[in-house]
Amino acid sequence: MRPWKRLASTPVVESRWLTVTADTCELPTGVVIEPYFVIHEPEWVHVFAVNDKAEILVVRQYRYAADTVCTELPGGAASPAEAPLVAAKRELLEETGHTAETWTYVGALFANPARQTNRVHLFVARGLSRAAEQSLDDSEDIEFTFLSAAAVQVAIEQGAFSQALHVASFYRGIQFTNAAGAA
Amino acid sequence: MRPWKRLASTPVVESRWLTVTADTCELPTGVVIEPYFVIHEPEWVHVFAVNDKAEILVVRQYRYAADTVCTELPGGAASPAEAPLVAAKRELLEETGHTAETWTYVGALFANPARQTNRVHLFVARGLSRAAEQSLDDSEDIEFTFLSAAAVQVAIEQGAFSQALHVASFYRGIQFTNAAGAA
Repeated sequence: MRPWKRLASTPVVESRWLTVTADTCELPTGVVIEPYFVIHEPEWVHVFAVNDKAEILVVRQYRYAADTVCTELPGGAASPAEAPLVAAKRELLEETGHTAETWTYVGALFANPARQTNRVHLFVARGLSRAAEQSLDDSEDIEFTFLSAAAVQVAIEQGAFSQALHVASFYRGIQFTNAAGAA
Repeated sequence: MRPWKRLASTPVVESRWLTVTADTCELPTGVVIEPYFVIHEPEWVHVFAVNDKAEILVVRQYRYAADTVCTELPGGAASPAEAPLVAAKRELLEETGHTAETWTYVGALFANPARQTNRVHLFVARGLSRAAEQSLDDSEDIEFTFLSAAAVQVAIEQGAFSQALHVASFYRGIQFTNAAGAA
């Protein structure tokens, strides 16, 4: 299972949040693919924030590309020089006004490794406190609430919790906290 | 939670597998964002194919953008006029040479609804038979095997099963087949 060779890579879209390159790739068989478009986005973070009643903090916001309102975990994009944990704490505070006493790293998954370079980093946050008001930018309108794991499961089945990356992080968070005997 | 208005949409990348548009969006607050890049890809399908021993059929292949080998569920992109079920049957046969007696639709999730328009459709396939050899195109080099759910869980934790969309589909498939009392 040998890697492909990158013979060339030319940016065709360049912006703060998204770069797209048109790559020329040589496969192990010698076949050359051109262009193969690669999407470069910042590293992403998700927060599985769980309170003393084993309820999970979720956010609800409008998502433009799919033209739909999604229930998700708190999270977002890390800035270029920002460590994932720092980004996770910042996103939780901005989106929900909450801080947490303990943060545990679950791990990273690739968002879409065929086409995208970036990963989603998942943290479990416990010992939650409401520390501030939300701090949203001009483009954000975010509601938050706590849901039981069973209610999130229903939201997945009924299409309200419909973001695949967040579904992965929800199940991973459940698996991780159950394994740790803490939720 | 009101939708954004699309004031304009201009393609900046156009290809068979990927189109990127630069959109001009008006938010409910009146703020205008320009450009907001939207990624248009085909609908995707994943197959949770489970045998009589409750083992799950997984594939392993090199993924260029992340430069890594991933264990995943069988799946791929539907052609424009192809129904998701037809694409799922085709991908399972091409990637693993397997057919299935029964197909059940679990549902769809958005790949990334903030930025991408497309969805991932998940099917459970049961009553598996090896019907043919793999039928791969020039760019594909795919191995397949059956793993227990516990082994997939270990592969997720250790980073071998590292594609977030497939992690979502794996857990959803487990949840769905457990609920149906069939795996």
